[in-house]
Amino acid sequence: MKKISLLGATGSIGTQTLEVIANHPDKFELEAISIGKNIELGLKQIIEYKPKLVSVQFKEDYDRILKEVPENVKLFYGKEGLEEVAANNDADILVNAVLGSVGLGPTLSAIRAGKTIAIANKETLVTAGHIVTSEAKKYNTQLLPVDSEHSAIFQCLQGERLVEVEKLILTASGGSFRNKERSDLKNVTVEDALKHPNWSMGAKITIDSATMMNKGLEVIEAHWLFDMPYEKIDVLLHQESIIHSMVEFIDGSVIAQLGTPDMKVPIQFALTYPNRLQLENKKRLNLLEIGKLHFSKPSLDRFRCLQFAFEAGKKGGTYPTVLNAANEQAVSLFLDGKISFLQIEDSIDLALDNHNYIASPSLEDIQEIDRKTRKFVESMMVK
Amino acid sequence: MKKISLLGATGSIGTQTLEVIANHPDKFELEAISIGKNIELGLKQIIEYKPKLVSVQFKEDYDRILKEVPENVKLFYGKEGLEEVAANNDADILVNAVLGSVGLGPTLSAIRAGKTIAIANKETLVTAGHIVTSEAKKYNTQLLPVDSEHSAIFQCLQGERLVEVEKLILTASGGSFRNKERSDLKNVTVEDALKHPNWSMGAKITIDSATMMNKGLEVIEAHWLFDMPYEKIDVLLHQESIIHSMVEFIDGSVIAQLGTPDMKVPIQFALTYPNRLQLENKKRLNLLEIGKLHFSKPSLDRFRCLQFAFEAGKKGGTYPTVLNAANEQAVSLFLDGKISFLQIEDSIDLALDNHNYIASPSLEDIQEIDRKTRKFVESMMVK
Repeated sequence: MKKISLLGATGSIGTQTLEVIANHPDKFELEAISIGKNIELGLKQIIEYKPKLVSVQFKEDYDRILKEVPENVKLFYGKEGLEEVAANNDADILVNAVLGSVGLGPTLSAIRAGKTIAIANKETLVTAGHIVTSEAKKYNTQLLPVDSEHSAIFQCLQGERLVEVEKLILTASGGSFRNKERSDLKNVTVEDALKHPNWSMGAKITIDSATMMNKGLEVIEAHWLFDMPYEKIDVLLHQESIIHSMVEFIDGSVIAQLGTPDMKVPIQFALTYPNRLQLENKKRLNLLEIGKLHFSKPSLDRFRCLQFAFEAGKKGGTYPTVLNAANEQAVSLFLDGKISFLQIEDSIDLALDNHNYIASPSLEDIQEIDRKTRKFVESMMVK
Repeated sequence: MKKISLLGATGSIGTQTLEVIANHPDKFELEAISIGKNIELGLKQIIEYKPKLVSVQFKEDYDRILKEVPENVKLFYGKEGLEEVAANNDADILVNAVLGSVGLGPTLSAIRAGKTIAIANKETLVTAGHIVTSEAKKYNTQLLPVDSEHSAIFQCLQGERLVEVEKLILTASGGSFRNKERSDLKNVTVEDALKHPNWSMGAKITIDSATMMNKGLEVIEAHWLFDMPYEKIDVLLHQESIIHSMVEFIDGSVIAQLGTPDMKVPIQFALTYPNRLQLENKKRLNLLEIGKLHFSKPSLDRFRCLQFAFEAGKKGGTYPTVLNAANEQAVSLFLDGKISFLQIEDSIDLALDNHNYIASPSLEDIQEIDRKTRKFVESMMVK
């Protein structure tokens, strides 16, 4: 029986994680969850999935729901609450599915508490990859990927040696606007951007897919998760999202992982690793129905965010932190209707150009730069 | 340093195996080779690759070349010679790349001598899979696949558990006549049949590809190599031969192995397993150049041999032996211009229908049935 705690229970990955756990009551036990703003859904989850420990984001919500939750559920709130969910309970695995760099602190606490981390929160690795991976090494903690691309690579690497890897090949759908030219992007709406062709995901990651910043963040995530230089990471456009990613080895052999676009597969693999379990109610991959798989090269002029990410990753230090914070802030402004789609790129470009670089930032440096970058983007872009 | 002996040095797999060995003189040492009819090439190989032990097929060739081979090379001939190459030397690995069921005896000797077997001779497993695999288990000998499809599956299974496999998916190019209807096949020539669209291989296997008996034999080979029921083995037409085969797991995840159509990759992997080595002078897979991968369902009416193989495999006993022997004989007759292309299928159909079934044939039974089947096909088809 694996005991699981879950940061970000009401999000897209969070709800699917709860379904996977519920499908295998003989294998998994839910220890703790954190809930963000969606208190209504959170309350339903508490009743249905019976975690022993729950944290909400705000004190007001805590006060409001304290009497609604069953007596045997311990309720917390705020930053301290996140720490309780991440580290102070009996869970073997922490599934980190919160959004954005707020996931960093709890991840580090969980690492230090010796928990295996199933990491769906790529921003944590992008903003502070050097700290997270060195702490994981120090505490002998395993980081298991949940992103479909990184889970694919992780699966392709089973039984293989990292020194024999020639290249990691991340596939990209190209997002909502993959068939548009750059000139068509000027007046696209939030609604347009939220229509992902293949995957049903949260709003932030869907916008990140449309800008291809999502792939950029994944490149940096792959760099840290698999200890791979950026020169050995490639991105390939693959519109069907059937091959989730690939690994090329030094002998020319390429191993790929394929599947339907369903996040439950990588979520479940992270929870069952190194084993696999029957996936319930699952439509299986049918290559006959699909018939063809397409591949093409993503243009770095068309997808500037991908270019920014490769550059920020190679420069290292605080560059990825700024890249991520500027992107989070800009996407949030775009979703609020305050800036246009192409201004997301402009925000990140400006922020990267105007920050005070630190080569080996501490956790405090990162938190400070993250805060400053968000403020900078807000003040530059919203007049 | 791994010591290697090689049955069938002058064939397509044989020559490529020698190239792989020569590319890594620090890793591999050639102990022994067997040579068939191509004595001229064999003599060149003896000079160039310096095996310590050589066997030729015929006494006449032995007598003729005895004075031409260097003094430090031990020369043998005939069945006894094959045994010397297979079992009586210091090799760690035997690469079995002879053609047809003649590979069976030496393979069993090598297994009993405790050598790892790199098996390119699928007929050995088809004709006597139950004996070969049970002997391998008894002598704790590993059977490593060299066929590109089985090497692909073997690579996909690294770090995985067989009990978690849902399905093996063998891909098939469809061979020389994949774009022809059945009605177009009546008058095709040997020359037409030998034009394989993707792979450069020996004559017998190229004809087997055109009839898709090759895929049928591979289904039976996969059944034995991976201990998989026929219900869990699928065949998919994939015209580009880029995905060499796939494994679907119980959680819906599919792992595939991809590469250029180059037998040196699976040959080398069998020799370096569990490690990988840089492959010299190798064109790497470029999915951008290829652009698209296609998949479709092979019709069992169009490719009758595939149907025969599935049926023979499921019936078991002597059926696969008859399937293989009839096919070998019929292909040989076709290559000699004695029967037409579609008569290959008819020969196999007739032979399967008219043999005396044995449920658990001994090695002697198999050799007897193999001989009888060849004779039957010859007498039925050539008037």
